[in-house]
Amino acid sequence: MSEQIKYILDESKIPANWYNIEADLKEHTPPPLDPATGKPIDPAKLEAIFARGVIEQETSRERYIPIPEPVRAILQQWRPSPLYRARRLEKALNTPARIYYKFEGVSPSGSHKSNSALAQVFENKRCGTKFITTETGAGQWGSALSQACQIFGLHCRVYMVKCSFDQKPYRKAVMELFGGETIPSPSNRTEAGRAVLAKDPDCSGSLGIAISEAVEEAVKNPDTKYCLGSVLNHVLLHQTIIGEEALLQMEMANDYPDMIIGACGGGSNFAGIAFPFIGEMLRGGKKVDVLGVEPAACPSLTKGKYAYDFGDVAKMTPLMKMYTLGSSFIPPAVHSGGLRYHGMAPQISNIAKQGLMRARTVQQLDVFRDAVAFARSEGIIPAPESSHAISAAMDEARKCAETGEHKCILFNLSGHGHLDMSAYLEYFAGKLKNYNYPEQEIAMALSGLPVCDENAK
Amino acid sequence: MSEQIKYILDESKIPANWYNIEADLKEHTPPPLDPATGKPIDPAKLEAIFARGVIEQETSRERYIPIPEPVRAILQQWRPSPLYRARRLEKALNTPARIYYKFEGVSPSGSHKSNSALAQVFENKRCGTKFITTETGAGQWGSALSQACQIFGLHCRVYMVKCSFDQKPYRKAVMELFGGETIPSPSNRTEAGRAVLAKDPDCSGSLGIAISEAVEEAVKNPDTKYCLGSVLNHVLLHQTIIGEEALLQMEMANDYPDMIIGACGGGSNFAGIAFPFIGEMLRGGKKVDVLGVEPAACPSLTKGKYAYDFGDVAKMTPLMKMYTLGSSFIPPAVHSGGLRYHGMAPQISNIAKQGLMRARTVQQLDVFRDAVAFARSEGIIPAPESSHAISAAMDEARKCAETGEHKCILFNLSGHGHLDMSAYLEYFAGKLKNYNYPEQEIAMALSGLPVCDENAK
Repeated sequence: MSEQIKYILDESKIPANWYNIEADLKEHTPPPLDPATGKPIDPAKLEAIFARGVIEQETSRERYIPIPEPVRAILQQWRPSPLYRARRLEKALNTPARIYYKFEGVSPSGSHKSNSALAQVFENKRCGTKFITTETGAGQWGSALSQACQIFGLHCRVYMVKCSFDQKPYRKAVMELFGGETIPSPSNRTEAGRAVLAKDPDCSGSLGIAISEAVEEAVKNPDTKYCLGSVLNHVLLHQTIIGEEALLQMEMANDYPDMIIGACGGGSNFAGIAFPFIGEMLRGGKKVDVLGVEPAACPSLTKGKYAYDFGDVAKMTPLMKMYTLGSSFIPPAVHSGGLRYHGMAPQISNIAKQGLMRARTVQQLDVFRDAVAFARSEGIIPAPESSHAISAAMDEARKCAETGEHKCILFNLSGHGHLDMSAYLEYFAGKLKNYNYPEQEIAMALSGLPVCDENAK
Repeated sequence: MSEQIKYILDESKIPANWYNIEADLKEHTPPPLDPATGKPIDPAKLEAIFARGVIEQETSRERYIPIPEPVRAILQQWRPSPLYRARRLEKALNTPARIYYKFEGVSPSGSHKSNSALAQVFENKRCGTKFITTETGAGQWGSALSQACQIFGLHCRVYMVKCSFDQKPYRKAVMELFGGETIPSPSNRTEAGRAVLAKDPDCSGSLGIAISEAVEEAVKNPDTKYCLGSVLNHVLLHQTIIGEEALLQMEMANDYPDMIIGACGGGSNFAGIAFPFIGEMLRGGKKVDVLGVEPAACPSLTKGKYAYDFGDVAKMTPLMKMYTLGSSFIPPAVHSGGLRYHGMAPQISNIAKQGLMRARTVQQLDVFRDAVAFARSEGIIPAPESSHAISAAMDEARKCAETGEHKCILFNLSGHGHLDMSAYLEYFAGKLKNYNYPEQEIAMALSGLPVCDENAK
């Protein structure tokens, strides 16, 4: 009687459109600025780096953007992804809350990242790109992009932060298995890499350096473009397929969330589940309590400043208006590599600023404790990143057990943790720890925010 | 146009019954013998080890055995499992063959093992068992049983071959995550273990020793029973849900296999996909070419002797009539731990003897080459065990490319390889090798077959 309930949509119900929240926002998300001029960047200038189709999506204000048929045809390998009612977890928590979760771990890369990787590679294929470069930290994005490039016949080169490259050989193996080429960064393939190595031949790398290398290669080669796995509007757009499906599946369940929860790193999986429901709310639908969950070690939404900042450590990207901890902030080594980003997607930052969502932090040990309880109840091994959403959802359900409230909670389980078993081992061995709010480091990083008119306001 | 096609059955179509091939066999599978008497073993004697419900299934000749409703309710978390038409693989091979595969990697343990684990634990719960013991080599069965015990509230103790315990910490972590207790074997918990350690304190263990420890614990404790993950009739029975679903899904595809392929270790995943189709054939349905695929390093069906033999190295089990390489044969260290078994399930051996199926071997390097090609086409990382079926299916499809034959091929993809990335890394690094047929070792092991009337015939 307390078994999970699975809501499977028919393949024909895979959404035909992505949902663009910009269409429903009264206050639009501030545009990226060119750091050289302090003015909004000319989209044409982005074509050196990004595929044209992607730039159009980035700047669109259309409410619905059609998912290209070839992309939709490939997505159907694993979409619609299942929505589960977590009846066993509810019973274990003895809560009157109804807990639903969307499970994105069924994709080829094991996370939601495949949703955007396919869409981005398709646009690149369409405009004649032959080579795609990107950076990866933990490796989920690199895996997803490698697999998408394999499908469309493009070459994928992934600059992987050197210490991750050495520490996470299995992620590298997944990328190679899917046909991607993995380069430890800093490398001697690029000027940016060579400059770093000249100073420090043993440099273990950073996401900032890896981005610089990947972008440089795209800028210098006309048949090469760069792809990013989160933060930008078009990446969030591609992920809205999650929430669009969830809307239909909640209808199947004859229910509707009071609360929506997602883990927040750059913001793409959170936006994926939340934006379609926020859109309903903005168009007069039911009010929903939307919660973004961050690691205490990297609290951009909860402790960051809303300002224009660079997207990378090396200060090569346009300036984006976002909640930021300062682009020079290096988060502590929590086991959720996918959440270790100094900023938050501009659209999510804008929505948070407008009070359409709230945010909280969770501690690493609580995340793992709840991930284990979840796995034991639900039979799914969650990724540490996704487990931030699990932990917050379980907290809410525990509150309901106290108050007796019959709250309906929906969260996004963005990926499986099959390649994160070393983190679980460390947790079981008592080797993981919590992190205090890195106040001084963040204050220091924020003191170096770029000077521009907007930031001076 | 060349995308995968996914056939998803409605949840209501999860088979209500397992299929028992014994009902349709003209020559029944010879019964297990008591090694002490050389006579068929008294089922009551097995109750010291196995749950009563499981023993009834083991000896039943009913064609259909109802799947208990609580088991079926849990199976629906991931069942019906998808059937895919591998259009991208077909295109890559430029073959006129139609390739279908059933994907069992969607289960909590990542393989078909969960199908039987749940069924066995349910019967144990029903008869009051509190503790369950088992052995595991590679770890898939231990993971599946741990998760099933967690669901039903039983304690699971897994004796894991010590060298695997040390070499495969991630599998151990999965078992712990699902609440299972993992003991490196030989241990000092049992007489069998202590005896081994007294002789050799550094003994790295074997499946035979681990079975002895797990069985001993079950025999000595009235609230403890033992579970086995393959070979026995009831385990094969539980896996027929795979083929029963595939029958319905082939109907959805408006197609029917000319050929069915499965990897063969103990035989449970092979039986799962093949038995329901062989049953159709035995009852006058379409003739199907059924192929079992073994590693060249452990060729029980292709090179073994059809004789009564022990199921374990320590000679503690009843004697089973099967194709065997001799119970003292230790297969070379191929990366498919799940296929390193000296014997073949008695029912499969019987069917092979009757000419209802055939078998072939594949070499390790071919298996990995084809696993990589499969992953790149289909976006699924296969387990090395399952990749034996992939490799044989691809061979058949390549033959069709030469002959122009439009053959319909169905194989079972029994599990994902997310926890096998170290094997892929070794393959990419050129560190894997093929194995010659271990002729002398097998001859030696076969010379030690037990003496009994049946073997003397």
